[in-house]
Amino acid sequence: MERALELAALGIEADPNPRVGCVLLDPDGLLVAEGWHQGAGTPHAEAMALAIAGERARGCTAVVTLEPCNHTGRTGPCAKALVDAGVARVVFAQSDPNPMAAGGAATLRAAGIQTEPGLMADRVEALNATWNHVLRTGRPWVTWKFAGTLDGRSAAADGSSQWITGAAMRRVMNERRARCGAVVVGTGTVKADDPRLTVRDEQDEPVQRQPLRVVVGDSPVPAAARVRGRDGLYRQLPGGDATAALEALACEGIHHVWLEGGPTLAAAWWRAGVIDEVIACLAPALLGAGTAAVADLGITTIADISRLQLIDVERHGDDVALILNRPTPNCKEK
Amino acid sequence: MERALELAALGIEADPNPRVGCVLLDPDGLLVAEGWHQGAGTPHAEAMALAIAGERARGCTAVVTLEPCNHTGRTGPCAKALVDAGVARVVFAQSDPNPMAAGGAATLRAAGIQTEPGLMADRVEALNATWNHVLRTGRPWVTWKFAGTLDGRSAAADGSSQWITGAAMRRVMNERRARCGAVVVGTGTVKADDPRLTVRDEQDEPVQRQPLRVVVGDSPVPAAARVRGRDGLYRQLPGGDATAALEALACEGIHHVWLEGGPTLAAAWWRAGVIDEVIACLAPALLGAGTAAVADLGITTIADISRLQLIDVERHGDDVALILNRPTPNCKEK
Ligand SMILES: NC(=O)c1ccc[n+]([C@@H]2O[C@H](COP(=O)([O-])OP(=O)(O)OC[C@H]3O[C@@H](n4cnc5c(N)ncnc54)[C@H](OP(=O)(O)O)[C@@H]3O)[C@@H](O)[C@H]2O)c1
Ligand SMILES: NC(=O)c1ccc[n+]([C@@H]2O[C@H](COP(=O)([O-])OP(=O)(O)OC[C@H]3O[C@@H](n4cnc5c(N)ncnc54)[C@H](OP(=O)(O)O)[C@@H]3O)[C@@H](O)[C@H]2O)c1
Repeated sequence: MERALELAALGIEADPNPRVGCVLLDPDGLLVAEGWHQGAGTPHAEAMALAIAGERARGCTAVVTLEPCNHTGRTGPCAKALVDAGVARVVFAQSDPNPMAAGGAATLRAAGIQTEPGLMADRVEALNATWNHVLRTGRPWVTWKFAGTLDGRSAAADGSSQWITGAAMRRVMNERRARCGAVVVGTGTVKADDPRLTVRDEQDEPVQRQPLRVVVGDSPVPAAARVRGRDGLYRQLPGGDATAALEALACEGIHHVWLEGGPTLAAAWWRAGVIDEVIACLAPALLGAGTAAVADLGITTIADISRLQLIDVERHGDDVALILNRPTPNCKEK
Repeated sequence: MERALELAALGIEADPNPRVGCVLLDPDGLLVAEGWHQGAGTPHAEAMALAIAGERARGCTAVVTLEPCNHTGRTGPCAKALVDAGVARVVFAQSDPNPMAAGGAATLRAAGIQTEPGLMADRVEALNATWNHVLRTGRPWVTWKFAGTLDGRSAAADGSSQWITGAAMRRVMNERRARCGAVVVGTGTVKADDPRLTVRDEQDEPVQRQPLRVVVGDSPVPAAARVRGRDGLYRQLPGGDATAALEALACEGIHHVWLEGGPTLAAAWWRAGVIDEVIACLAPALLGAGTAAVADLGITTIADISRLQLIDVERHGDDVALILNRPTPNCKEK
């Protein structure tokens, strides 16, 4: 299972599908074939391993990180493929939480194949944390990133703000953003900055795989706004109801949303309780005045302070990133 | 010298005097005696080692972290004591930067004793960083500590602020404050909070060695204000001229000032360029509104942002402390 987990991690984190790994072992425990899922539209991990093994799959034990799927998507159901290949036993970590794909274990058992669920399930779940989150809550995992000074300012008094954090921090955050399914801003940010929201490489060229670019709000987005692009990866969603906007994104296969701001939209989503993770990028600098990095959250007294759980502290160049989770468990379970 | 530095570190950091260590070695390099300075009014490191060695000091090499002093303070000049004891050679790390005490090496050489300055001088200087700072600049080293949320708030909209950071952070900061020579607040904080400013132990009893309690500002401090205490360790200094206030503290033997705030005084001292170190205690929490942890610094555009040098990131309980130095070198050299 350690190896299957390693294989799964070879998959693409940004994909709507979970990352899955599969190892086929013969009755003596010797390795016959390995497979991992390489992204939507490509074979599942089990299919890849079975294709490599061919006839040698017969009598094998399949060790898979996720319960083999039971539904015919762009690829056929894996449970049936394992039955057809004559596999004797299937060990898997996480049961499939996707109601559309679940039932694989039952199919296997009905065909007389021994199944063993649960091995290392925690670690496998952590590998696909955002995918699991969507299936449990119906909403993508939302990461809100903001940048500011030690004293919580995101722009100076005259509005100038480039740059507060340094190049190293911006590069790391750009890479993380690239692994998300969608980048979200409010209409206010589009009006103020006309951002492209594309992920670019070191040469400032757009990379091949781009997250969806999403503008939330009711104001019209100008036809010439750069965020629209020409690749069809642009959406505008109505403002107001954060949950509705996120459910719409979940339906498009998005499991990880990168909320760039601005402050108004971020504060509204914070109050709505849909932000799961906060990345505070702090520059070792003071401004003493200027725009607050975080807008009014409706908190008036210290007893109502929004406490987060500090997950990690990272240093990138001169800057510090604090990675925090919203600790309220009701955000993670529907 | 490694051993002499270890001995020096046994001294009290908070004292107006530097921490000094001394080792006496016989001509074969064998240890004869050790000494270290244990605080103002107690024997210097050399005197302690010589007292232990007695007649055996004759012909020895003295290894001292600091150039032996040449002046008669509460204890006699060490240079003369080394001559009288018949020491053959003196190796020291840092030359004495204190004009009142310097000249020890010259005295030794005039008496025919071989002197070797400079060994490990950097590490010895670092050990007495704040003491060296006073001698170079005429002002104590100023550490400004503030506490706030990730979004730079030190109180909620209704003024409530207890507690933003947790008990572990407060304990660590209390310990650091205890090692300073003076704790400073503005008259505004006295009016608002009537703080005691004493260092207290786990049982909330005042510890024996207390820093000076200093209130800066022109408003009268009420006779009943708790900060006055009854131990004579209270001062009020006029507001306005930060440098004058700090020079007055240097004259009282203070080499490390702990600036507690409030925001108005801290901002004024920041603008005056007298703050050497900032400790930002950040709670993993958001308020979205309320008092800014840092008041107006007179900065209006991003080009004038006050950048600091990040020295260290510490985690205490759930909170994070960023330790930063003001990078402008003119604050450290007069
Ligand atoms: N420091 C940073 O990290 C950072 C990041 C991004 C932007 N910014 C800056 O932020 C500024 C823009 O700020 P902003 O706050 O106006 O922009 P914003 O948060 O991007 O947009 C605010 C708009 O979002 C819409 N919206 C959608 N759903 C909403 C909801 N549930 N509640 C409230 N509004 C909702 C509303 O517009 P409709 O009326 O259209 O519905 C609202 O006016 C720019 O100057 C930009 O440079 C800073
Ligand atoms: N979050 C924290 O870490 C923290 C720490 C301490 C206090 N606080 C809070 O801060 C609040 C008090 O704030 P504050 O800003 O009024 O207090 P403050 O900074 O302690 O006091 C301000 C006063 O200091 C005097 N002052 C002395 N030298 C000055 C100079 N060079 N420039 C300007 N003023 C000078 C002035 O009074 P004169 O007219 O008398 O000269 C001024 O009004 C309280 O609510 C307290 O709880 C928070």
